Amino acid sequence: MEKVKIAILGFGNVGTGVWKILQENKKEIMKRSNCQIEVAKILVNDINKKRDIDISKEILTDNIDDIINDESIKIVVELVGGRDEAKQYMIRAMKAKKHIVTANKLVIANWGEELFKIADEENVLFYYEASVAGGIPIIREINESLTANRIEQIIGIINGTTNYILSKMTLEGLSFEQALKEAQEKGYAEADPTSDVEGYDAVYKLAIMASLSFGTKVDHDRIYREGISKISAVDIEYAKKFGYTIKLLAIAKEENNKLELRVHPTLIPSSHPMANVNDAFNAILIKGNAVGELMLYGQGAGDMPTGSAVVGDIISILRNNVKPSELKALNDDADFKEVKKSEENESEFYIRLNVNDRAGVLGDTAKIFGGNNVSITSITQDVVHKEHVLLAFITHKSAEKNINNSLKKIKELENVNEIESIIRIESFN
Amino acid sequence: MEKVKIAILGFGNVGTGVWKILQENKKEIMKRSNCQIEVAKILVNDINKKRDIDISKEILTDNIDDIINDESIKIVVELVGGRDEAKQYMIRAMKAKKHIVTANKLVIANWGEELFKIADEENVLFYYEASVAGGIPIIREINESLTANRIEQIIGIINGTTNYILSKMTLEGLSFEQALKEAQEKGYAEADPTSDVEGYDAVYKLAIMASLSFGTKVDHDRIYREGISKISAVDIEYAKKFGYTIKLLAIAKEENNKLELRVHPTLIPSSHPMANVNDAFNAILIKGNAVGELMLYGQGAGDMPTGSAVVGDIISILRNNVKPSELKALNDDADFKEVKKSEENESEFYIRLNVNDRAGVLGDTAKIFGGNNVSITSITQDVVHKEHVLLAFITHKSAEKNINNSLKKIKELENVNEIESIIRIESFN
Repeated sequence: MEKVKIAILGFGNVGTGVWKILQENKKEIMKRSNCQIEVAKILVNDINKKRDIDISKEILTDNIDDIINDESIKIVVELVGGRDEAKQYMIRAMKAKKHIVTANKLVIANWGEELFKIADEENVLFYYEASVAGGIPIIREINESLTANRIEQIIGIINGTTNYILSKMTLEGLSFEQALKEAQEKGYAEADPTSDVEGYDAVYKLAIMASLSFGTKVDHDRIYREGISKISAVDIEYAKKFGYTIKLLAIAKEENNKLELRVHPTLIPSSHPMANVNDAFNAILIKGNAVGELMLYGQGAGDMPTGSAVVGDIISILRNNVKPSELKALNDDADFKEVKKSEENESEFYIRLNVNDRAGVLGDTAKIFGGNNVSITSITQDVVHKEHVLLAFITHKSAEKNINNSLKKIKELENVNEIESIIRIESFN
Repeated sequence: MEKVKIAILGFGNVGTGVWKILQENKKEIMKRSNCQIEVAKILVNDINKKRDIDISKEILTDNIDDIINDESIKIVVELVGGRDEAKQYMIRAMKAKKHIVTANKLVIANWGEELFKIADEENVLFYYEASVAGGIPIIREINESLTANRIEQIIGIINGTTNYILSKMTLEGLSFEQALKEAQEKGYAEADPTSDVEGYDAVYKLAIMASLSFGTKVDHDRIYREGISKISAVDIEYAKKFGYTIKLLAIAKEENNKLELRVHPTLIPSSHPMANVNDAFNAILIKGNAVGELMLYGQGAGDMPTGSAVVGDIISILRNNVKPSELKALNDDADFKEVKKSEENESEFYIRLNVNDRAGVLGDTAKIFGGNNVSITSITQDVVHKEHVLLAFITHKSAEKNINNSLKKIKELENVNEIESIIRIESFN
């Protein structure tokens, strides 16, 4: 049986997971890859740091050159994270004829194209299953399982932190601040939670998935983004009343060669399987013109699930599987497909106003919506104080432009104190 | 670009789907396979039958020899269904050096081993993604995505007919008979629904999935089987009260090299994503020792979804992907792993009795359960007539043997009229 030496760059959470999987499932992995995998080198910052794992110090190095210059190492697993350094390591490794496995969404979303090109030139394989949604094999799904389809939509819960927070708010009635604090205590959210909570993390992952699905470059800066920090317990409660659950969705749709790309909190029907995706779980729904709706659900982060994706990629390389870099450019003609502006998009909306309890305010509001081609499906209202009333609407499918125009006028009504929430609805039609 | 000729055996529902996908997604498929696919021959029973699809008669043949003897045909897509004839066609095609794609669960479950062996000997590829769960790429998932894992459990809703019936009973309060009739009218159930309703269809699919997951031969006759025809509206209602939804599950678990294989109606927590899998949809949950819980959800039947799996397999062959037949025997040592007898299995149970409204009957029943090491989590009771009371229990995890022993004694109690339901519970722990 062939022996293959690999190197791991970075030995944090995921690196440890990869190490554990290679040990624990050695027998299975050997059968499936027909190779004996040996971790020859691990790049770390501090060789002498105390570790929970029993590992020979001779394997550890703090010098990337020890790995790049070692011709016996065939595969480099990049898990250092971050941007520039990781990118440079991968380029150097490929130029030294080493195959790459990476979990780095930042690098793929920013320089995927460039890296795939180098992989082609150097005739090495480049795998990145773990860069999106941890243990869920979404990249392989798009690149290898759904090849018979024209993909029309991808809708995902792809950020575990925000899903944990929204689940706690929904199921236990916590406020956003309480739920965030709990997420931080449990290690689901970072000290500075901006990247997760404001949707940046989801934007990078969506850019990768959309690029593969629609065969086009996707500039992540062009993706509409809205986080969950303004979602209140009141909205969760009202959504429930209307039969919905609030989730942070990443949405990519293609119609007539135009893309719709957005990340924002969304009301989804509570009867949809995605509504039951709770805690730090992820789920991604793909709509293909042959397969219809297909959903994958699983753990989007964590040492072992992400390690599962990384080790799966290593095994794919050893089996000398199809080149993922060849699969990217489905549509060579369109370097960038047109991305619709947010106000061109259409959806149903949930809108909540704080108004004074005066006769006529509902009528005035409804009239403005009607005058802007926005029709209302349901209304509910609750008296909060003596004066203030919460008035919530669900609209039919409307252009965002019409919603915005309505709200501009509604804001000016004498008895409207505030437009407290505007949240899109996804009905999966 | 290389031109590749293929033949389709059988031109029913799925065959038509395959044809449509090859036309509609021609451009995408060409890019992804780097080949131009031409359907050179289609085997039909009656060449002159009127068809909805515009197809040249010269492609149609009623003689399998026209396909087997045509050396220019590289791939044979077997969609005739049934058993012996389909098997013989595939063997003849492989001996004529043609690759195979099939959707035939019966043949794979019965003679998979034999067919994979012939494929190896003849050095042809053999793909069968469509044989389980239609459009859901479960075979590829097990064989290629989860290679880093030791798979511990597979739990699936893999029969659309029964899921449609149970959904109608749950969501619309229909009786089994009413729901079955509606399923038949909509084409989800056959005139003789036995194969679906009594769980045989699910048994074949489970045999295939378990064999791949656990790397062992699985004799489908050894799988415990129970259908849904005895499920009553009362049980659906009681399950709901206890926080559960009833689904027909196919369950395969491996622990200490012993297998647990069973197909039966099951109470699952209504908060689990699987509880929201409704209508004819399928879902399969895999538990791997690295990835944790991973669920796939999608359409388990239909011309286009199943066609999506078939055409995906054709493209995999053209890309000269990994040989699925090589992936089967994970564990060469164990030809057959031990399958536990049903009474050795453990689960929580839902048990409903019809009793007379007499003091002491609850106490007597509870005493028998306790004496047999069965402990009770919840109880509910409803008076039906003046005399009859429905008494329902949820038990803690118990050995089936202990449940059976208890019920034997409970049956003999003077005031117990009937044991109306015994349904297992799956809590996904």
